[in-house]
Amino acid sequence: MIKETLIFGHKNPDTDSITSSLVMENLEKELGNNVKAVRLGNINKETEYVLNFLGLDAPELLDSIDDNQDVILIDHNEASQSVDNIGNAKVLKVVDHHAINFSTPSPLYYRAEPVGCTATVLYKMYKENDVEISKTIASLMLSAIASDTLLLKSPTTTEEDKRVVKKLEDISGLDFSTYGTDMLKAGTDISEFTPEQIINIDCKLFEKGNKKFRIAQVNTADLDSIFKNQAYFEKAINDDIQKENLDLYVFAATDIINSNSKIISLGNDAPVVEKAFGVSVDNNTAMLENIVSRKKQILPNILNNLD
Amino acid sequence: MIKETLIFGHKNPDTDSITSSLVMENLEKELGNNVKAVRLGNINKETEYVLNFLGLDAPELLDSIDDNQDVILIDHNEASQSVDNIGNAKVLKVVDHHAINFSTPSPLYYRAEPVGCTATVLYKMYKENDVEISKTIASLMLSAIASDTLLLKSPTTTEEDKRVVKKLEDISGLDFSTYGTDMLKAGTDISEFTPEQIINIDCKLFEKGNKKFRIAQVNTADLDSIFKNQAYFEKAINDDIQKENLDLYVFAATDIINSNSKIISLGNDAPVVEKAFGVSVDNNTAMLENIVSRKKQILPNILNNLD
Repeated sequence: MIKETLIFGHKNPDTDSITSSLVMENLEKELGNNVKAVRLGNINKETEYVLNFLGLDAPELLDSIDDNQDVILIDHNEASQSVDNIGNAKVLKVVDHHAINFSTPSPLYYRAEPVGCTATVLYKMYKENDVEISKTIASLMLSAIASDTLLLKSPTTTEEDKRVVKKLEDISGLDFSTYGTDMLKAGTDISEFTPEQIINIDCKLFEKGNKKFRIAQVNTADLDSIFKNQAYFEKAINDDIQKENLDLYVFAATDIINSNSKIISLGNDAPVVEKAFGVSVDNNTAMLENIVSRKKQILPNILNNLD
Repeated sequence: MIKETLIFGHKNPDTDSITSSLVMENLEKELGNNVKAVRLGNINKETEYVLNFLGLDAPELLDSIDDNQDVILIDHNEASQSVDNIGNAKVLKVVDHHAINFSTPSPLYYRAEPVGCTATVLYKMYKENDVEISKTIASLMLSAIASDTLLLKSPTTTEEDKRVVKKLEDISGLDFSTYGTDMLKAGTDISEFTPEQIINIDCKLFEKGNKKFRIAQVNTADLDSIFKNQAYFEKAINDDIQKENLDLYVFAATDIINSNSKIISLGNDAPVVEKAFGVSVDNNTAMLENIVSRKKQILPNILNNLD
């Protein structure tokens, strides 16, 4: 039996990780390859909105992989963000738009660009391979870009993302701004979630030297509804700090309407955010004006100031 | 003053590292970027033939780089193969075809494919960016592929390399086989070198468990001219074994005309080559039929048989 190559995005998948896995599955199949998109975690509300809108099923959930399984990594490359036993897999390809911390024993296909979204890279791969983009695939890519760039307003946004959005609007027939706003708003519906669940919606683990830290991010149209429960969030965060022996945990609630983020910073290295962002921490929180991107703004500033 | 982005291949540069740096310089300039190709070591005889044939100067030699210098890495990604203080540079792009052992704090452009030569990837980048390939640029790419794939005969060769060679033959007006053979032969001119120098032209150190070994390789069109000096080579090799406490030293003289390699195997683990390649060692030497690639053939077979 020929084993399928598995395609997946990072743990705690966001819309780009899910939709770009589905898009890559389509591209690889069009190129004649035996592949299957899977996912490493629950679908969030925003992605649920996209899949419902397009009448698509979510990819199957993947718990672990067999040794020597062929895989394609989407929207991530670091082992800590991938399936637990990724070290035993054979990575055939990587398509990503993040910083790189990656090694393999053999040459492979690796394609990353410093653009706002994996889908922007995938769009170019369709063009390069001369594969037609269907309405559904264009809608999936448009969703990923709307999500990752917060409607092209995040500082991670590039001219390439903007150019690709125009093309995808034509193919999909969707109005980017209207559809994207509806999608983002659907994603901020966290009314059913506990603070423990909210901090885990999009939470990533990072390392520098012997320091281990997490940055969690949630989009919202209503900061107050989150911070009225600050004590509960702090308890959930402190539990994780203890359990995982973290030096720092930054939880960022990003206001998608006003393009800023209010954070909770906890752990022994919590004061690092004062230097990192030029702010004063008051009651473990601080408002970061014009800060919306974990990748381009929050993470590098912390990395540069963490000793 | 705006600082140029420096483009360079690996240390001990081969033809691909030099010519692909020049090709990338051209592509980036065509795209409006301020760049300059440089090199990390002396030009070998083969590359000298290429540059003379095309009437081009070698890129400037680079010793070290300033902190925060913008760089583009060609034909390599590992720090150990790059300029000494690469950790202080800002890597903007990587174009490569090797295994990956790489990390950066920020997203960047990274493009690698498991093909025979960096030039094959660069060809696709010209196409994708819709930049015309001049006769000279096509000749540089053709040279790189001829060198890295030993005229498409190395097992590292892919269908993509073959396809690209056809296109480049058309643009350059060169006959790949004739030109490539002349170029490879020019590269085998080791008449000025001592045996000590010859074994160090392209010599790599490997480890398995507590075993340390070296595999040196030199291309030749005339095995006899090397093996008439076998005693001198053995002395040079045994000196290195003693000095570096090696368990094994395999020196492979690869016959680029007949696509096989005659080896000298010395050290306590010298007999491993009998099992590794199914040959009998006679007077410390053996002929390995159809073996030309250290990366794909010699190294894996030794690794699999060394206890």
